Amino acid sequence: MILDPETDLSFSLTLNAPRAVIWQCWTQPQHLKEFFVPKPHFIESCDVDLRVGGRFNTVMNVEGNSMSNDGVFLEIVPDEKLVFTDAYQEGWKPAADPFMTAIIELADTDGGTLYTVTARHRSAEACKAHKDMGFFDGWGTVARQLESYAQTLI
Amino acid sequence: MILDPETDLSFSLTLNAPRAVIWQCWTQPQHLKEFFVPKPHFIESCDVDLRVGGRFNTVMNVEGNSMSNDGVFLEIVPDEKLVFTDAYQEGWKPAADPFMTAIIELADTDGGTLYTVTARHRSAEACKAHKDMGFFDGWGTVARQLESYAQTLI
Repeated sequence: MILDPETDLSFSLTLNAPRAVIWQCWTQPQHLKEFFVPKPHFIESCDVDLRVGGRFNTVMNVEGNSMSNDGVFLEIVPDEKLVFTDAYQEGWKPAADPFMTAIIELADTDGGTLYTVTARHRSAEACKAHKDMGFFDGWGTVARQLESYAQTLI
Repeated sequence: MILDPETDLSFSLTLNAPRAVIWQCWTQPQHLKEFFVPKPHFIESCDVDLRVGGRFNTVMNVEGNSMSNDGVFLEIVPDEKLVFTDAYQEGWKPAADPFMTAIIELADTDGGTLYTVTARHRSAEACKAHKDMGFFDGWGTVARQLESYAQTLI
Protein backbone atom coordinates (compact mmCIF):
# COMPACT_ATOMS: atom_id res chain seq x y z
CA MET A 1 0.00 0.00 0.00
CA ILE A 2 1.47 3.36 -1.02
CA LEU A 3 0.36 6.07 1.37
CA ASP A 4 -0.66 9.49 0.17
CA PRO A 5 0.41 12.15 2.71
CA GLU A 6 -2.40 14.42 1.51
CA THR A 7 -5.20 12.00 2.33
CA ASP A 8 -3.85 9.26 4.61
CA LEU A 9 -2.98 9.15 8.33
CA SER A 10 -0.98 6.23 9.69
CA PHE A 11 1.12 5.13 12.65
CA SER A 12 2.65 1.94 14.03
CA LEU A 13 3.16 0.81 17.62
CA THR A 14 4.38 -2.38 19.25
CA LEU A 15 1.70 -3.89 21.46
CA ASN A 16 2.77 -6.32 24.17
CA ALA A 17 0.23 -9.02 23.29
CA PRO A 18 0.01 -11.81 20.72
CA ARG A 19 -1.35 -11.17 17.26
CA ALA A 20 -4.16 -13.72 17.63
CA VAL A 21 -5.44 -12.03 20.78
CA ILE A 22 -5.36 -8.57 19.18
CA TRP A 23 -7.33 -10.02 16.27
CA GLN A 24 -9.89 -11.51 18.63
CA CYS A 25 -10.30 -8.12 20.34
CA TRP A 26 -10.87 -6.33 17.04
CA THR A 27 -13.47 -8.75 15.72
CA GLN A 28 -15.77 -9.65 18.63
CA PRO A 29 -18.32 -7.18 20.05
CA GLN A 30 -17.76 -8.08 23.71
CA HIS A 31 -14.06 -7.28 23.29
CA LEU A 32 -14.50 -4.23 21.04
CA LYS A 33 -16.58 -2.59 23.76
CA GLU A 34 -13.59 -2.71 26.09
CA PHE A 35 -11.16 -0.61 24.07
CA PHE A 36 -12.73 0.85 20.92
CA VAL A 37 -13.24 4.44 22.13
CA PRO A 38 -11.03 6.53 24.42
CA LYS A 39 -12.35 6.35 27.98
CA PRO A 40 -14.44 7.76 29.61
CA HIS A 41 -16.45 7.61 26.37
CA PHE A 42 -17.90 4.15 25.87
CA ILE A 43 -19.63 1.85 23.40
CA GLU A 44 -23.36 1.47 23.98
CA SER A 45 -23.79 -1.20 21.33
CA CYS A 46 -21.77 -2.99 18.72
CA ASP A 47 -23.17 -5.17 15.95
CA VAL A 48 -20.66 -7.21 13.97
CA ASP A 49 -21.18 -9.55 11.03
CA LEU A 50 -17.62 -10.57 10.32
CA ARG A 51 -17.61 -11.17 6.58
CA VAL A 52 -16.77 -9.08 3.53
CA GLY A 53 -19.67 -6.65 3.18
CA GLY A 54 -20.99 -7.54 6.63
CA ARG A 55 -22.07 -4.85 9.04
CA PHE A 56 -19.85 -3.16 11.58
CA ASN A 57 -22.29 -0.87 13.38
CA THR A 58 -21.46 0.87 16.62
CA VAL A 59 -23.10 3.38 18.89
CA MET A 60 -20.73 5.31 21.08
CA ASN A 61 -21.62 7.45 24.06
CA VAL A 62 -19.79 10.75 24.26
CA GLU A 63 -20.66 12.75 27.35
CA GLY A 64 -24.20 11.41 27.40
CA ASN A 65 -24.81 11.74 23.66
CA SER A 66 -25.34 8.65 21.53
CA MET A 67 -23.45 8.68 18.25
CA SER A 68 -24.18 5.97 15.69
CA ASN A 69 -21.65 4.86 13.14
CA ASP A 70 -22.78 2.27 10.60
CA GLY A 71 -20.29 0.61 8.32
CA VAL A 72 -19.08 -2.61 6.77
CA PHE A 73 -16.00 -4.78 6.63
CA LEU A 74 -14.17 -4.55 3.33
CA GLU A 75 -11.36 -7.05 3.83
CA ILE A 76 -10.73 -9.71 6.45
CA VAL A 77 -7.43 -11.59 6.66
CA PRO A 78 -7.48 -13.38 10.03
CA ASP A 79 -4.69 -12.35 12.40
CA GLU A 80 -3.26 -9.97 9.77
CA LYS A 81 -5.51 -7.34 8.29
CA LEU A 82 -8.94 -5.84 8.93
CA VAL A 83 -10.39 -3.14 6.69
CA PHE A 84 -13.65 -1.35 7.45
CA THR A 85 -15.40 1.82 6.40
CA ASP A 86 -18.47 3.99 6.81
CA ALA A 87 -18.60 4.37 3.01
CA TYR A 88 -21.12 1.52 2.86
CA GLN A 89 -23.91 0.07 4.89
CA GLU A 90 -24.77 -3.64 4.79
CA GLY A 91 -25.77 -4.77 1.29
CA TRP A 92 -23.26 -2.40 -0.33
CA LYS A 93 -25.48 0.63 0.08
CA PRO A 94 -23.18 3.61 -0.54
CA ALA A 95 -23.14 6.29 2.16
CA ALA A 96 -23.89 9.81 0.98
CA ASP A 97 -20.91 11.37 2.73
CA PRO A 98 -18.43 8.82 4.06
CA PHE A 99 -15.67 9.88 6.38
CA MET A 100 -12.92 7.30 6.18
CA THR A 101 -11.64 3.81 5.53
CA ALA A 102 -9.61 2.20 8.34
CA ILE A 103 -6.95 -0.45 7.82
CA ILE A 104 -5.65 -2.35 10.86
CA GLU A 105 -2.54 -4.42 10.16
CA LEU A 106 -0.90 -6.88 12.53
CA ALA A 107 2.57 -8.45 12.24
CA ASP A 108 4.82 -10.38 14.59
CA THR A 109 7.66 -8.41 16.13
CA ASP A 110 10.04 -8.66 19.08
CA GLY A 111 7.96 -8.07 22.18
CA GLY A 112 4.58 -8.75 20.66
CA THR A 113 2.62 -7.35 17.76
CA LEU A 114 3.49 -4.59 15.35
CA TYR A 115 0.18 -2.74 15.14
CA THR A 116 -0.35 -0.38 12.22
CA VAL A 117 -3.42 1.81 11.89
CA THR A 118 -4.10 3.65 8.63
CA ALA A 119 -7.04 5.94 7.95
CA ARG A 120 -7.62 6.79 4.28
CA HIS A 121 -9.82 9.71 3.27
CA ARG A 122 -11.56 10.94 0.14
CA SER A 123 -9.99 14.37 0.27
CA ALA A 124 -7.18 16.37 1.82
CA GLU A 125 -9.84 18.36 3.71
CA ALA A 126 -11.34 15.24 5.34
CA CYS A 127 -7.86 14.05 6.24
CA LYS A 128 -6.94 17.36 7.84
CA ALA A 129 -10.23 17.41 9.74
CA HIS A 130 -9.50 13.92 11.11
CA LYS A 131 -5.99 14.96 12.09
CA ASP A 132 -7.26 18.13 13.81
CA MET A 133 -9.95 16.09 15.56
CA GLY A 134 -7.11 14.24 17.28
CA PHE A 135 -6.49 11.14 15.15
CA PHE A 136 -3.05 10.39 16.59
CA ASP A 137 -3.99 10.95 20.23
CA GLY A 138 -7.33 9.20 19.92
CA TRP A 139 -6.19 6.11 18.05
CA GLY A 140 -3.01 6.04 20.16
CA THR A 141 -5.11 5.93 23.34
CA VAL A 142 -7.27 3.22 21.81
CA ALA A 143 -4.13 1.21 20.99
CA ARG A 144 -2.96 1.35 24.61
CA GLN A 145 -6.44 0.46 25.88
CA LEU A 146 -6.40 -2.47 23.46
CA GLU A 147 -2.99 -3.61 24.72
CA SER A 148 -4.05 -3.47 28.39
CA TYR A 149 -7.30 -5.27 27.71
CA ALA A 150 -5.67 -7.91 25.48
CA GLN A 151 -3.25 -8.72 28.31
CA THR A 152 -6.19 -9.69 30.53
CA LEU A 153 -7.14 -12.36 27.92
CA ILE A 154 -3.75 -14.05 27.67
CA MET B 1 -30.62 -6.77 -0.35
CA ILE B 2 -33.40 -4.20 0.07
CA LEU B 3 -33.42 -1.79 -2.85
CA ASP B 4 -33.97 1.91 -2.35
CA PRO B 5 -35.94 3.35 -5.29
CA GLU B 6 -34.37 6.76 -4.67
CA THR B 7 -30.79 5.62 -5.14
CA ASP B 8 -30.78 2.18 -6.81
CA LEU B 9 -31.39 1.03 -10.38
CA SER B 10 -31.95 -2.66 -11.09
CA PHE B 11 -33.26 -5.08 -13.69
CA SER B 12 -33.26 -8.80 -14.38
CA LEU B 13 -33.11 -10.72 -17.65
CA THR B 14 -32.82 -14.36 -18.60
CA LEU B 15 -29.67 -15.02 -20.61
CA ASN B 16 -29.52 -18.13 -22.75
CA ALA B 17 -26.14 -19.32 -21.50
CA PRO B 18 -24.89 -21.23 -18.46
CA ARG B 19 -24.05 -19.41 -15.24
CA ALA B 20 -20.43 -20.58 -15.23
CA VAL B 21 -19.83 -19.16 -18.70
CA ILE B 22 -21.42 -15.81 -17.78
CA TRP B 23 -19.15 -15.71 -14.73
CA GLN B 24 -16.10 -16.44 -16.87
CA CYS B 25 -17.06 -13.58 -19.22
CA TRP B 26 -17.43 -11.12 -16.34
CA THR B 27 -14.10 -11.94 -14.70
CA GLN B 28 -11.53 -12.34 -17.47
CA PRO B 29 -10.17 -9.36 -19.45
CA GLN B 30 -10.17 -11.10 -22.83
CA HIS B 31 -13.88 -11.83 -22.43
CA LEU B 32 -14.84 -8.50 -20.82
CA LYS B 33 -13.51 -6.70 -23.88
CA GLU B 34 -16.07 -8.49 -26.02
CA PHE B 35 -19.24 -7.24 -24.33
CA PHE B 36 -18.56 -4.70 -21.58
CA VAL B 37 -19.54 -1.52 -23.46
CA PRO B 38 -22.31 -1.03 -26.02
CA LYS B 39 -20.88 -1.31 -29.53
CA PRO B 40 -19.50 0.51 -31.50
CA HIS B 41 -17.76 1.82 -28.36
CA PHE B 42 -15.01 -0.56 -27.30
CA ILE B 43 -12.60 -1.41 -24.49
CA GLU B 44 -9.02 -0.31 -25.15
CA SER B 45 -7.62 -2.01 -22.06
CA CYS B 46 -8.84 -3.96 -19.08
CA ASP B 47 -6.76 -4.77 -16.00
CA VAL B 48 -8.28 -7.25 -13.57
CA ASP B 49 -6.95 -8.56 -10.25
CA LEU B 50 -9.81 -10.83 -9.22
CA ARG B 51 -9.72 -10.66 -5.43
CA VAL B 52 -11.49 -8.55 -2.82
CA GLY B 53 -9.87 -5.11 -3.05
CA GLY B 54 -8.16 -6.03 -6.31
CA ARG B 55 -8.18 -3.63 -9.23
CA PHE B 56 -10.81 -3.53 -11.96
CA ASN B 57 -9.47 -0.83 -14.26
CA THR B 58 -10.81 -0.25 -17.72
CA VAL B 59 -10.27 2.24 -20.51
CA MET B 60 -13.13 2.54 -22.93
CA ASN B 61 -13.07 4.25 -26.29
CA VAL B 62 -16.10 6.40 -27.05
CA GLU B 63 -16.02 7.95 -30.50
CA GLY B 64 -12.24 8.22 -30.44
CA ASN B 65 -11.97 9.48 -26.85
CA SER B 66 -10.29 7.35 -24.19
CA MET B 67 -12.17 7.23 -20.90
CA SER B 68 -10.49 5.60 -17.90
CA ASN B 69 -12.44 4.05 -15.09
CA ASP B 70 -10.44 2.70 -12.14
CA GLY B 71 -12.11 0.62 -9.48
CA VAL B 72 -11.92 -2.46 -7.29
CA PHE B 73 -13.84 -5.63 -6.62
CA LEU B 74 -15.75 -5.57 -3.34
CA GLU B 75 -17.22 -9.06 -3.25
CA ILE B 76 -16.59 -12.18 -5.30
CA VAL B 77 -18.80 -15.27 -5.01
CA PRO B 78 -17.86 -17.48 -7.98
CA ASP B 79 -20.73 -18.16 -10.40
CA GLU B 80 -23.12 -16.14 -8.20
CA LYS B 81 -22.24 -12.58 -7.34
CA LEU B 82 -19.73 -9.95 -8.40
CA VAL B 83 -19.63 -6.52 -6.76
CA PHE B 84 -17.38 -3.71 -7.98
CA THR B 85 -17.14 0.04 -7.62
CA ASP B 86 -15.23 3.16 -8.58
CA ALA B 87 -15.42 4.27 -4.92
CA TYR B 88 -11.95 2.81 -4.34
CA GLN B 89 -8.74 2.29 -6.17
CA GLU B 90 -6.42 -0.63 -5.42
CA GLY B 91 -5.20 -0.57 -1.80
CA TRP B 92 -8.52 0.82 -0.55
CA LYS B 93 -7.74 4.35 -1.63
CA PRO B 94 -11.10 6.16 -1.49
CA ALA B 95 -12.12 8.02 -4.64
CA ALA B 96 -12.96 11.69 -4.19
CA ASP B 97 -16.23 11.51 -6.07
CA PRO B 98 -17.39 7.96 -6.78
CA PHE B 99 -20.24 7.31 -9.15
CA MET B 100 -21.67 3.90 -8.33
CA THR B 101 -21.42 0.39 -7.00
CA ALA B 102 -22.48 -2.40 -9.35
CA ILE B 103 -23.82 -5.77 -8.25
CA ILE B 104 -24.08 -8.58 -10.81
CA GLU B 105 -26.07 -11.58 -9.60
CA LEU B 106 -26.46 -14.91 -11.38
CA ALA B 107 -28.95 -17.68 -10.66
CA ASP B 108 -30.11 -20.77 -12.51
CA THR B 109 -33.42 -20.49 -14.26
CA ASP B 110 -35.36 -22.27 -17.01
CA GLY B 111 -33.62 -21.46 -20.26
CA GLY B 112 -30.31 -20.39 -18.78
CA THR B 113 -29.23 -17.78 -16.28
CA LEU B 114 -31.26 -15.21 -14.41
CA TYR B 115 -29.02 -12.16 -14.69
CA THR B 116 -29.65 -9.29 -12.29
CA VAL B 117 -27.80 -6.00 -12.51
CA THR B 118 -28.08 -3.46 -9.71
CA ALA B 119 -26.38 -0.07 -9.58
CA ARG B 120 -26.36 1.62 -6.17
CA HIS B 121 -25.60 5.33 -5.84
CA ARG B 122 -24.68 7.74 -3.06
CA SER B 123 -27.51 10.11 -3.78
CA ALA B 124 -30.83 10.44 -5.56
CA GLU B 125 -29.15 12.94 -7.91
CA ALA B 126 -26.44 10.48 -8.96
CA CYS B 127 -29.07 7.79 -9.47
CA LYS B 128 -31.20 10.06 -11.64
CA ALA B 129 -28.15 11.10 -13.66
CA HIS B 130 -27.32 7.44 -14.30
CA LYS B 131 -30.90 6.72 -15.33
CA ASP B 132 -30.99 9.74 -17.65
CA MET B 133 -27.62 8.70 -19.08
CA GLY B 134 -29.37 5.56 -20.31
CA PHE B 135 -28.74 2.94 -17.62
CA PHE B 136 -31.49 0.57 -18.75
CA ASP B 137 -30.73 0.79 -22.48
CA GLY B 138 -26.98 0.67 -21.96
CA TRP B 139 -26.81 -2.19 -19.49
CA GLY B 140 -29.57 -3.99 -21.40
CA THR B 141 -27.51 -3.80 -24.60
CA VAL B 142 -24.47 -5.03 -22.67
CA ALA B 143 -26.52 -7.97 -21.35
CA ARG B 144 -27.49 -9.02 -24.88
CA GLN B 145 -23.91 -8.61 -26.11
CA LEU B 146 -22.82 -10.78 -23.18
CA GLU B 147 -25.40 -13.43 -24.06
CA SER B 148 -24.33 -13.56 -27.72
CA TYR B 149 -20.66 -13.69 -26.86
CA ALA B 150 -21.14 -16.29 -24.09
CA GLN B 151 -22.89 -18.55 -26.62
CA THR B 152 -19.71 -18.61 -28.73
CA LEU B 153 -17.85 -20.09 -25.73
CA ILE B 154 -20.23 -22.98 -25.02
